[in-house]
Amino acid sequence: MEFGRTRVLCVASFTAGVPRWRRDSGQGWITAEYAMLPRSTDTRGARESIKGRPGGRTQEISRLIGRALRAAVDDELLGENTIQVDCDVLQADGGTRTAAITGAYLAVADACAWAQSEGLISKWPLRNSVAAVSVGVVDGEPRLDLHYDDDVTADTDMNVVMTGDGRFVEVQGTAEGEPFERATLDALLGLAQGGCAELTALQEAALAEDGKARGRLLDGGPATVAAGAQPGGAS
Amino acid sequence: MEFGRTRVLCVASFTAGVPRWRRDSGQGWITAEYAMLPRSTDTRGARESIKGRPGGRTQEISRLIGRALRAAVDDELLGENTIQVDCDVLQADGGTRTAAITGAYLAVADACAWAQSEGLISKWPLRNSVAAVSVGVVDGEPRLDLHYDDDVTADTDMNVVMTGDGRFVEVQGTAEGEPFERATLDALLGLAQGGCAELTALQEAALAEDGKARGRLLDGGPATVAAGAQPGGAS
Amino acid sequence: MEFGRTRVLCVASFTAGVPRWRRDSGQGWITAEYAMLPRSTDTRGARESIKGRPGGRTQEISRLIGRALRAAVDDELLGENTIQVDCDVLQADGGTRTAAITGAYLAVADACAWAQSEGLISKWPLRNSVAAVSVGVVDGEPRLDLHYDDDVTADTDMNVVMTGDGRFVEVQGTAEGEPFERATLDALLGLAQGGCAELTALQEAALAEDGKARGRLLDGGPATVAAGAQPGGAS
Amino acid sequence: MEFGRTRVLCVASFTAGVPRWRRDSGQGWITAEYAMLPRSTDTRGARESIKGRPGGRTQEISRLIGRALRAAVDDELLGENTIQVDCDVLQADGGTRTAAITGAYLAVADACAWAQSEGLISKWPLRNSVAAVSVGVVDGEPRLDLHYDDDVTADTDMNVVMTGDGRFVEVQGTAEGEPFERATLDALLGLAQGGCAELTALQEAALAEDGKARGRLLDGGPATVAAGAQPGGAS
Amino acid sequence: MEFGRTRVLCVASFTAGVPRWRRDSGQGWITAEYAMLPRSTDTRGARESIKGRPGGRTQEISRLIGRALRAAVDDELLGENTIQVDCDVLQADGGTRTAAITGAYLAVADACAWAQSEGLISKWPLRNSVAAVSVGVVDGEPRLDLHYDDDVTADTDMNVVMTGDGRFVEVQGTAEGEPFERATLDALLGLAQGGCAELTALQEAALAEDGKARGRLLDGGPATVAAGAQPGGAS
Amino acid sequence: MEFGRTRVLCVASFTAGVPRWRRDSGQGWITAEYAMLPRSTDTRGARESIKGRPGGRTQEISRLIGRALRAAVDDELLGENTIQVDCDVLQADGGTRTAAITGAYLAVADACAWAQSEGLISKWPLRNSVAAVSVGVVDGEPRLDLHYDDDVTADTDMNVVMTGDGRFVEVQGTAEGEPFERATLDALLGLAQGGCAELTALQEAALAEDGKARGRLLDGGPATVAAGAQPGGAS
Repeated sequence: MEFGRTRVLCVASFTAGVPRWRRDSGQGWITAEYAMLPRSTDTRGARESIKGRPGGRTQEISRLIGRALRAAVDDELLGENTIQVDCDVLQADGGTRTAAITGAYLAVADACAWAQSEGLISKWPLRNSVAAVSVGVVDGEPRLDLHYDDDVTADTDMNVVMTGDGRFVEVQGTAEGEPFERATLDALLGLAQGGCAELTALQEAALAEDGKARGRLLDGGPATVAAGAQPGGAS
Repeated sequence: MEFGRTRVLCVASFTAGVPRWRRDSGQGWITAEYAMLPRSTDTRGARESIKGRPGGRTQEISRLIGRALRAAVDDELLGENTIQVDCDVLQADGGTRTAAITGAYLAVADACAWAQSEGLISKWPLRNSVAAVSVGVVDGEPRLDLHYDDDVTADTDMNVVMTGDGRFVEVQGTAEGEPFERATLDALLGLAQGGCAELTALQEAALAEDGKARGRLLDGGPATVAAGAQPGGAS
Repeated sequence: MEFGRTRVLCVASFTAGVPRWRRDSGQGWITAEYAMLPRSTDTRGARESIKGRPGGRTQEISRLIGRALRAAVDDELLGENTIQVDCDVLQADGGTRTAAITGAYLAVADACAWAQSEGLISKWPLRNSVAAVSVGVVDGEPRLDLHYDDDVTADTDMNVVMTGDGRFVEVQGTAEGEPFERATLDALLGLAQGGCAELTALQEAALAEDGKARGRLLDGGPATVAAGAQPGGAS
Repeated sequence: MEFGRTRVLCVASFTAGVPRWRRDSGQGWITAEYAMLPRSTDTRGARESIKGRPGGRTQEISRLIGRALRAAVDDELLGENTIQVDCDVLQADGGTRTAAITGAYLAVADACAWAQSEGLISKWPLRNSVAAVSVGVVDGEPRLDLHYDDDVTADTDMNVVMTGDGRFVEVQGTAEGEPFERATLDALLGLAQGGCAELTALQEAALAEDGKARGRLLDGGPATVAAGAQPGGAS
Repeated sequence: MEFGRTRVLCVASFTAGVPRWRRDSGQGWITAEYAMLPRSTDTRGARESIKGRPGGRTQEISRLIGRALRAAVDDELLGENTIQVDCDVLQADGGTRTAAITGAYLAVADACAWAQSEGLISKWPLRNSVAAVSVGVVDGEPRLDLHYDDDVTADTDMNVVMTGDGRFVEVQGTAEGEPFERATLDALLGLAQGGCAELTALQEAALAEDGKARGRLLDGGPATVAAGAQPGGAS
Repeated sequence: MEFGRTRVLCVASFTAGVPRWRRDSGQGWITAEYAMLPRSTDTRGARESIKGRPGGRTQEISRLIGRALRAAVDDELLGENTIQVDCDVLQADGGTRTAAITGAYLAVADACAWAQSEGLISKWPLRNSVAAVSVGVVDGEPRLDLHYDDDVTADTDMNVVMTGDGRFVEVQGTAEGEPFERATLDALLGLAQGGCAELTALQEAALAEDGKARGRLLDGGPATVAAGAQPGGAS
């Protein structure tokens, strides 16, 4: 998934079975892991496998992606299957978590289509689509973060995850500098609603094409990579 | 800090100096660590020191508390000093993170008062007070989470951190079950504004009393413990 | 449990079943974990979950508490049940390990009473009570460590765990400064015998009252906290 | 770098200064880290940051890449600068370590060109080029591993790193099944010499083009990603 | 096993059963762990248990020893049994990995003899013997590393593992300084073939004697230690 | 050091300088690490470097050895130098901790002699010798643990560390089974006094010989190993 110069490789792995604590529930499980390659940023960061543990920010974003995707999936219809999503940031230029969520939804949709074509699930298990945008206050003005080169200087940064039918899944707003008024918050929420609607339309268009073409259209490489890695396997 | 049956021991440790990356900036640093005692919940959880790392939820809440407190403190006025806040949950019955933030602010205010009385800082470094509440949708109805026995069944759970003058520092809303409409979100924000205002008034009243009495008034024990532990030291 | 200004929160969790290596033995298992809150001491210590492992001292004391409690419990009568004891130091002013043992015994007795009332065990599984004191040589003189403000300067520090009928479970004496003579050792053991007898009497008195009152009598707060946390659960 | 369907993202980060143990030596340092994305393989592997440590194979390959690159670089001419190479496998289909070495050399050459253009080094610090191939015995016959779909069934697997002038830097041969005769070993070494010469020619051609074009020619994407990530920075 | 002043304590532990992933395969498993005592070298190294993980070099050598031994053992004939080999370096003076492999083979042969005498395996499971030498280029001349005081200054260092019948199991050659020509490589391989043949003869002689005597003959102590540790157990 | 069939390799490494927290104090530092080789026991134990941390028992014994040795050394006379002692158990048959302490004292004495001969310290820094024995109650009878094959069945196990002049450094007694009476404790202490006196005499005899001979006399091997490892270095 590309958002401006930010590039995130999103892959969903579909496997039969669920973690032990969920066995015999008749319900599926979906979870996500997010990570940044060490040199995805302008200054190289230490590799988390070498530090010995994923950092707090990494875990926080992984949890956020997982929650967002769980809002998309009907656990009953998924059956006792697990979808594991990996979002690896190849190049980071702001908005990596919202790009990851928006791309992860497409990977999950692919995985479900593959699972259905293989007869692993009988009914379509996605009840909502999900997309996410980042909005913020820059120089005192609420802005939809389309260009992603502003967020270092944003006074407020808000990530909003919404369903395709316009409802909210997650709202996370933080005053980086000055605390913000209720009016500003309202304006930001309005911008986010518009941005998510736009991304939802793009997601629908992408899913209307066949998988291989979609990969190329959206990010010119990585999605094709992911698809290529799984010839007879999951999406 | 007691919120219903939830009890969080909040202690602020004031020390001269800042971490290496902040040296010679003239600015202070404030950070927080949150943790739950293994048996603070009804079913005992594994001790994180034995698992070898703090869990994702623990780190996420620690980061949230730190951000909230940084909105209260003026780094320049704090000077090159560090305030380390510890929030340890003795008994958990919902709302531990909002109780932690609200109590941590009092501990920080105590620490600053102590530092000023010792001559370690010359000007009062707190520019805002901060307090936090949890609001949610229970059985379809927006509710201010005063009683804290609802959040397992809440459809939506939202934590809101605000300054004493009514501005927002952090908004974190998650649809646990059904995604929520904009109207619901607006209603929840309104309830949160009222709840934070109420807590702000209680904080002011507490700070108007002397430290020892305050401890007793608010939580009947632990704060006194904390104070008692630091006779000639930081608050 | 309060020993002077030292306060340790002792909680026992009773659960059916035993670790894998003890299954089908017909015997129960009791184990303990000890930890200090970061700011229980005058100078804040690093949190062990963040250092990634419990320190040597922490593990040593956890093992000591476990051994002491195993001397109190009859594994056969306990049946295939596990008692997990947590001793968390809220405020440390010397003697934390002996306070932990003495308080842990009360928590275990509570847990057993609860388990018996729930029909989880049929016979009373405690064969001994256990209590512990710290004795030492201060300024050349053997002293029973009642006031706990001496042990930094103690030449010798000895922890003694005894049963209620006056037998020894554990003797750990260390010459912090000068090695000590046999006569000194004998004197210290005599003092410890007296101190443990006194604590045994206090334990018996506490257990004669009902649980809630006991909590308050002994430590003015934390034990009540612990009790409060487990309404329909283990002691 | 693409070798068949294997794709490895190789990035070199050039920074002034060397690790502490090499300070004041006048010599530079070059090191490498190799890792596989969890779903680079057909079956998802656990993320090493979550397992808490890089596995033995990961470390072994990281060390191999580092040694190979050190054969290319003249430490004196590099001066007290560090080149940190990251080789992240996006898609694995055999030969990832040899693809990583061959691609890493190009990334290092780019980094040196960038450093020279910035005036950070005065003389060209590469004394050799390095390239690596995998050769093996398949169905009893020595083969140059051009197609990389054989190595699961290879009886012998050998990785050979050579300089552009035809000398050996590293030879690692392992009998996966039957031990091999000296004659087989000689034949494999001959094949490897041919394969490395071919790769050396391709490397030279790539370096003759400008950086952006090269990226595209060699791997159709990821190298461009890497370049794109470092506008005003290191290669 | 003693090679010059290098001393490695090699012990093989034979146990019934195999790791989970190999169950019901009818095949055995053999694995190895290598480690150096902190003061086996002239300058004390940090203990790996305290650093929290075995280093890259340690893991690499452990994997090498395991692969070498797997070439000696017929998994089918071993049956579902595991041989775990420990190679602990008491004193290091070069060539520890080749000494470890050569000694480990003897320990494995002992363990198999013991297992056969106990009726745990019915047929002799070793199909090859294995031995290893280190060869290198010192001052421009290929040398068989008999005296082990050269390898700090070696230009090239090569470890070669061979079977008793003269075939290659593993070849690992590294140019520490200058890359090497094919002719040099050929010369080194020839030297290694001679060295391994010599060690094979010594291994055969040692195994012809009874276990206790062998221990003494080869290393004057440690092997006896190992044997002594396992009176009624594995070799 | 050999105690019956228990063999512990004790090495002391003398280095100039002290840990950071002790700098500029004019005082030295002595510390110890204890570990067991995986197959030192009859049943192989997991390697602690692979488990990722030293176990509680390991740390407890390391701390005990360190405390015992600190009672032998005068920090002022040692000057700002560090003695790091390693006690690695090659073969365990009971009493490893007391063997480690008794042997470690000899290694420390050697290291001090070496340091004095090198002019690194001017005055002899050992003020006491230390030795340790294990005593216990077997079948109801107090016994000096000379043969070390009893301690699995011991009702009580006590480790006693004493100085050469008959004073106590450490007393650690644990009731493995039945708690013990004061009279038993007194009898055990008496036995320990006799045992330590005997070991002190053996230590003195050993130190009267030259280092190389001593190694051989006491343990038939490992000490020679240790000495051999440090030709021009520390003892």
